[in-house]
Amino acid sequence: MKNYFSSDFKLGVLGGGQLGRMLLAETQKFDIHTSILESNKNAPCAAICNKFVLGDLLDFNAVYNFGKTVDLLTIEIENVNLDALDKLEKEGLTIYPKPKDLRIIQSKARQKNFYIDHKIPTAEFSHYAYLEELKHSFENNIIDFPFVWKAARFGYDGNGVKIVRNFEDLKNLPNVECITEKLVPFKNELAVIVARNANGETTTYPVVEMEFHPEANQVEYVICPARIDANVAKKARETALKVVSELDFVGLLAVEMFQTTDDKILVNEVAPRPHNSGHYSIEASYTNQFEQHLRSILNLPLGNTESKVAGIMVNLVGSEGCSGKVIYQNIEEILKIDGVTPHIYGKKETRPFRKMGHVTIVDENIEKAREIAQKVKETIRVISK
Amino acid sequence: MKNYFSSDFKLGVLGGGQLGRMLLAETQKFDIHTSILESNKNAPCAAICNKFVLGDLLDFNAVYNFGKTVDLLTIEIENVNLDALDKLEKEGLTIYPKPKDLRIIQSKARQKNFYIDHKIPTAEFSHYAYLEELKHSFENNIIDFPFVWKAARFGYDGNGVKIVRNFEDLKNLPNVECITEKLVPFKNELAVIVARNANGETTTYPVVEMEFHPEANQVEYVICPARIDANVAKKARETALKVVSELDFVGLLAVEMFQTTDDKILVNEVAPRPHNSGHYSIEASYTNQFEQHLRSILNLPLGNTESKVAGIMVNLVGSEGCSGKVIYQNIEEILKIDGVTPHIYGKKETRPFRKMGHVTIVDENIEKAREIAQKVKETIRVISK
Repeated sequence: MKNYFSSDFKLGVLGGGQLGRMLLAETQKFDIHTSILESNKNAPCAAICNKFVLGDLLDFNAVYNFGKTVDLLTIEIENVNLDALDKLEKEGLTIYPKPKDLRIIQSKARQKNFYIDHKIPTAEFSHYAYLEELKHSFENNIIDFPFVWKAARFGYDGNGVKIVRNFEDLKNLPNVECITEKLVPFKNELAVIVARNANGETTTYPVVEMEFHPEANQVEYVICPARIDANVAKKARETALKVVSELDFVGLLAVEMFQTTDDKILVNEVAPRPHNSGHYSIEASYTNQFEQHLRSILNLPLGNTESKVAGIMVNLVGSEGCSGKVIYQNIEEILKIDGVTPHIYGKKETRPFRKMGHVTIVDENIEKAREIAQKVKETIRVISK
Repeated sequence: MKNYFSSDFKLGVLGGGQLGRMLLAETQKFDIHTSILESNKNAPCAAICNKFVLGDLLDFNAVYNFGKTVDLLTIEIENVNLDALDKLEKEGLTIYPKPKDLRIIQSKARQKNFYIDHKIPTAEFSHYAYLEELKHSFENNIIDFPFVWKAARFGYDGNGVKIVRNFEDLKNLPNVECITEKLVPFKNELAVIVARNANGETTTYPVVEMEFHPEANQVEYVICPARIDANVAKKARETALKVVSELDFVGLLAVEMFQTTDDKILVNEVAPRPHNSGHYSIEASYTNQFEQHLRSILNLPLGNTESKVAGIMVNLVGSEGCSGKVIYQNIEEILKIDGVTPHIYGKKETRPFRKMGHVTIVDENIEKAREIAQKVKETIRVISK
């Protein structure tokens, strides 16, 4: 084993947002020197990493030059320059997740083709190079309303995903490469986080259940464990493991799935990194997802993914109509409640629906945690000065 | 309430060691801007705080000038220049813990007098201005071997504490102000951490039990909850609360106590800050001691001090005979065990008995945790290259 702890070893991370920041908490715990490449000088990681490098994650030279200064490279966002990663890998740098997997995951079209090719259950889809092609397909009655539209690239947290219900919706879509999916009637949106290290050791976290905000299309509650039938949970974990195995993935993979009305599991999409659906693990799990990400990319033994207590996460997003210097209104009210932990990501400016933080609620009793989560949601507001 | 979160508010901390580092994990979680004053440029906090100021904590100007740059001042070590704190307080700076309490706690003689004056049970003691006075007292048969000798000032972690068994031991003591205590036969060393905010809200953590290394006089295991009778635990918590109440203390106070062979509780000493005996709380408690320290000094509502699971802490100290660049031998072996979390403090050089980190073991079953703790202790070694 390499000596990572208080050593000369340098971990590089592409991206310096909140996921990087929560990862830094773990690299600090283990005293692993961590460099961050990020284009925003006020990003959540900027002030607290060992080394901060300003640069565009999609720029070949920025990524390549950064890669040459570290001993192992990972990501906290998947939209990075892959040609630079390919070159770095060829030159001997260890990169987890592997660039070949990032290439598949970066494009929703490639992701979907991968599922089809490897017999991983997923909703039916079509792929369009640009909007006119999609309109054409509609005019020829090849697809029907409603359907789900997804930008093939750079979508996250509801950006780049739309439910298209009529021609007006269709006309307003941006003119980019996209996929469309059948709108599958489902009971639950689920997620499973899988970790795998280079030795092939693999662990899965419990299945979580997600509730989405109806307008913003962002996760409102993540509930662990999901309140679903044990057989469905088993199927969801097996499906997530199949994705990891077919990708020969190393690192942390969050697999988002639908539980259909007839209890089928369909893979929606994956994220090759710590994920919003695993934030509950900081307070609830024996090993949180950020520590597990580190363990997996460093080929350390993986930690116990079981929970000490039930966990629910509430996202803190900017209130509608508020832009500017952020204030967390009533945060002291939620701090009064047992088992409530706010995480503030360090973004000084709020905007409507911007992810500013999250709150974890833990309790031995999941129903009690759910009640508290609702109260938290109704109490704290992310507003501007 | 002041706006602490992602705001212009600046917290200042005197001291940048491992306690400061674990406090930074919490200020980062809440995005509270944190400045550190510390004399060692390679200290654990140096690379990861918002602002690092190099300066001697015992120097009036260093502390005073640092204090003028922050909105609220706290400590992670109690040996700081109190005249500077007095002046800052007079000029309107909020300082928790209060300088008057630090003045009592800095001196073991004043601490002991405080206990006597406020009818807080403690071992009998004598106070000597210098070593000759103590020798004189011995020659006149006023004290007998064995007794406990403690330097009145600047002792920590076994430095400045000795059991004096014969005249040879006595001769070898340093010539400093000191106290001596009767060697009290005890069943257990216990500790209770109490938090109190400016509103007077007060919480106590469960009683923990400490096992000491026989030679280094450093804590070897901290076990939460202590495996003691409920009545003894109740008495210990009440005694700790009495100390906090008599001091009119604000902040976190760790109260170390003896459970005597006849089940009396005697206060040994207190620390006005997060404490080694509370490190288990990071993994085991609903609210860890560092978050609770923050909540108490910022006059936020205090968190739930109960445990999710049993917790045991093992200190990682430098092995005898090893000095130089540190290696954590077999750390990958302990990472294989469920519920085991190492914390590496970021000191690049090890020395015999230097505190380099700690390992927390959590499990639902305390006896199982204790077995694993033993295994951890026997497996990992802090050595040099």
